[in-house]
Amino acid sequence: MSIEHTLIEIGKKARAASALMARANTDAKNRALRETARLIRDNKAALKAANQADLDKAKTNGLEPALLDRLALSDSAIETMAEGLEQIAQLPDPIGEMTDFKNRPSGIQVGKMRVPLGVIGIIYESRPNVTVDAAGLCIKSGNATILRGGSEAFLCNQALAKLVSQGLEAACLPQDAVQVIDTTDRAAVGMLITMPEYVDVIVPRGGKGLIERISRDARVPVIKHLDGVCHVFIDESADMEKAIPIADNSKTHRYGTCNTMETLLVHQAVAKQVLNELAVRYATKQVELRGCPRTMALLPSAIAATEEDWSTEYLAPVLSIKVVDNLDQAIAHINQYGSHHTDSIVTENHSNGMRFIREVDSASVMINASTRFADGFEYGLGAEIGISTDKIHARGPVGLEGLTSQKYVVFGHGEIRK
Amino acid sequence: MSIEHTLIEIGKKARAASALMARANTDAKNRALRETARLIRDNKAALKAANQADLDKAKTNGLEPALLDRLALSDSAIETMAEGLEQIAQLPDPIGEMTDFKNRPSGIQVGKMRVPLGVIGIIYESRPNVTVDAAGLCIKSGNATILRGGSEAFLCNQALAKLVSQGLEAACLPQDAVQVIDTTDRAAVGMLITMPEYVDVIVPRGGKGLIERISRDARVPVIKHLDGVCHVFIDESADMEKAIPIADNSKTHRYGTCNTMETLLVHQAVAKQVLNELAVRYATKQVELRGCPRTMALLPSAIAATEEDWSTEYLAPVLSIKVVDNLDQAIAHINQYGSHHTDSIVTENHSNGMRFIREVDSASVMINASTRFADGFEYGLGAEIGISTDKIHARGPVGLEGLTSQKYVVFGHGEIRK
Repeated sequence: MSIEHTLIEIGKKARAASALMARANTDAKNRALRETARLIRDNKAALKAANQADLDKAKTNGLEPALLDRLALSDSAIETMAEGLEQIAQLPDPIGEMTDFKNRPSGIQVGKMRVPLGVIGIIYESRPNVTVDAAGLCIKSGNATILRGGSEAFLCNQALAKLVSQGLEAACLPQDAVQVIDTTDRAAVGMLITMPEYVDVIVPRGGKGLIERISRDARVPVIKHLDGVCHVFIDESADMEKAIPIADNSKTHRYGTCNTMETLLVHQAVAKQVLNELAVRYATKQVELRGCPRTMALLPSAIAATEEDWSTEYLAPVLSIKVVDNLDQAIAHINQYGSHHTDSIVTENHSNGMRFIREVDSASVMINASTRFADGFEYGLGAEIGISTDKIHARGPVGLEGLTSQKYVVFGHGEIRK
Repeated sequence: MSIEHTLIEIGKKARAASALMARANTDAKNRALRETARLIRDNKAALKAANQADLDKAKTNGLEPALLDRLALSDSAIETMAEGLEQIAQLPDPIGEMTDFKNRPSGIQVGKMRVPLGVIGIIYESRPNVTVDAAGLCIKSGNATILRGGSEAFLCNQALAKLVSQGLEAACLPQDAVQVIDTTDRAAVGMLITMPEYVDVIVPRGGKGLIERISRDARVPVIKHLDGVCHVFIDESADMEKAIPIADNSKTHRYGTCNTMETLLVHQAVAKQVLNELAVRYATKQVELRGCPRTMALLPSAIAATEEDWSTEYLAPVLSIKVVDNLDQAIAHINQYGSHHTDSIVTENHSNGMRFIREVDSASVMINASTRFADGFEYGLGAEIGISTDKIHARGPVGLEGLTSQKYVVFGHGEIRK
């Protein structure tokens, strides 16, 4: 069968399964999640064997060590996958929820009902745990999903797909609700993102290159996250007891995450004190500092930042620093060079804080908190399928709700339009 | 200047204006709306002269009479535009509204703030009133907008744009917040829908051909409405005192609107009674009936419906009718042939009604009400920029809220991530 026919068959099955998933009750969905968790634990040995075969092949193909690391499935990674499914089972079911009913002058009552999006296509790279996380979120939100993992994790993804399928079957839900594309043919991605008849939304997870390519070519809406050039702005009135730990934590808690601070902005009035204190902290952690001219005058250890630095997501122990005249300059810098992901102000001035959160055009805006809090679990979503830097549909951490839509419901009593 | 440069200049101005609009206060936005309403009334003669020049040219070019009708700007149409702006001024301002704050175990408080989308591109055909309606909704929702009207309404749209611009100026808001593209070059549309740097969302308003073309070529998200193949299903337990008026009103209240019923589904148990009663009503209004074989057996006046009829939006006094065995068949028919716009069940059976609204995959689902209620004003949105048949972002009638997005707001007290 040609790749085109294969994808159309998968799409048709997904569409049919999505109608059944949309009306599945909460109990059945939770049973499928818990049963899959059990199967994952019971089949640990088989999963590790499949993963080892993937790893062997990847080594032969000369995959970089960093990518090999992400590909490896440890005992604890397997347990985390199972626990993740059990956590999703514990979340409230968003589907069917009716809200916002109002009586209208005509006599009708108008409200909204939360419903699944339909079929979600998920395209991702190395990490096999995405297979299980994404399947779990789609099951709970009543969607069907078509998963396309990286070719380097092929065997492990297929093994996981089989277990999810068994979990669905045990709960009398359609096995086609979760399909993992079983070909490594690259043309499959091109097909998947251009089948609006069968796929309602695409969620790409991976490097910026992958996501840009998918956004450019997709004929289906894409919920995407490009990059995280996040800022902390330390205002004139900042409480140093808050500012220093926040600037430290935002940069050094983890270097490789999208909500890590990449640029620190400091009000000129407090720049000397702030930079001296922070330079000590960053030095002990070997963070390389790249500064504007005013920063360099205060910190001889810093090297000169280039124009490119201001829009770079380092994902590494590197920080760019700029001294600004005032709040306006800070906001303008963030809106110009940032990636609309997460930005935080440290201030004791109420009006400045409120202006910052209103005027900074980012998915998450914060006052006196570390940028590292921008995360589905920390926000109380229970789980996340990604963080969106788009403005349409879902913005910021995307949990179950981001995989749903609301339709209008009208309760009448025989009303007709006059 | 080349068309490309012109559009980029317009895009840059819109982007700059959108930052100012996003923080404009409610009073200034309302002042701009009311001032524009006043200017429209004061300049009625000039608007009618511009419209007459457009009409003369359109006649010379041989525009169809139906399109000439839509192009004509009567005294009452001018008054309706002015009143529309005043109504938008009276609506609550959605921007800056903060909701859903929750305390998290880490100590942070997480909530959401409603913000504008940024720059909205609106592409529309004949009717010049869209210029004013769309401008008004974008101003109130704090967005900048780039409008591209039909070439046949060019002079009138330019005259209206000038008045909106004066209204913005009077309220000290940026005149570039509303720009009407002042070229009839068709390449302008192609540019506008492929500039994600400058345009955040496109709203096309017009015929299905226009919308399909824009959806296919856009590199910017599109909020769109394709067509309205709406259904009424008269269930076995329907109250005939409700069913007959609803089926009559849904079809005959207005023929040319997207929420008009195009297919009537009738449960076999009540088909004879329902069809006999309705045939009399439809006959007095000269509605042509096209039926399935069972319908034709009951109504000799009906002609045979073809497969194509079930998915046709007639926008005319034509109705297709199908007798179905049960609720399941009705739901399956709607989900297969409908356009996911608006569908209504007439029933006294609670469980059937609840299944219908849950399982019919449409933007508006109704129990015992006319499909004609699917409308921003009837739903209490105050105004609408269109009706979306998409599932992503906005579904059903799109009012001010559909032109906004929500960002996450975090209030901390110095919290860092452990």
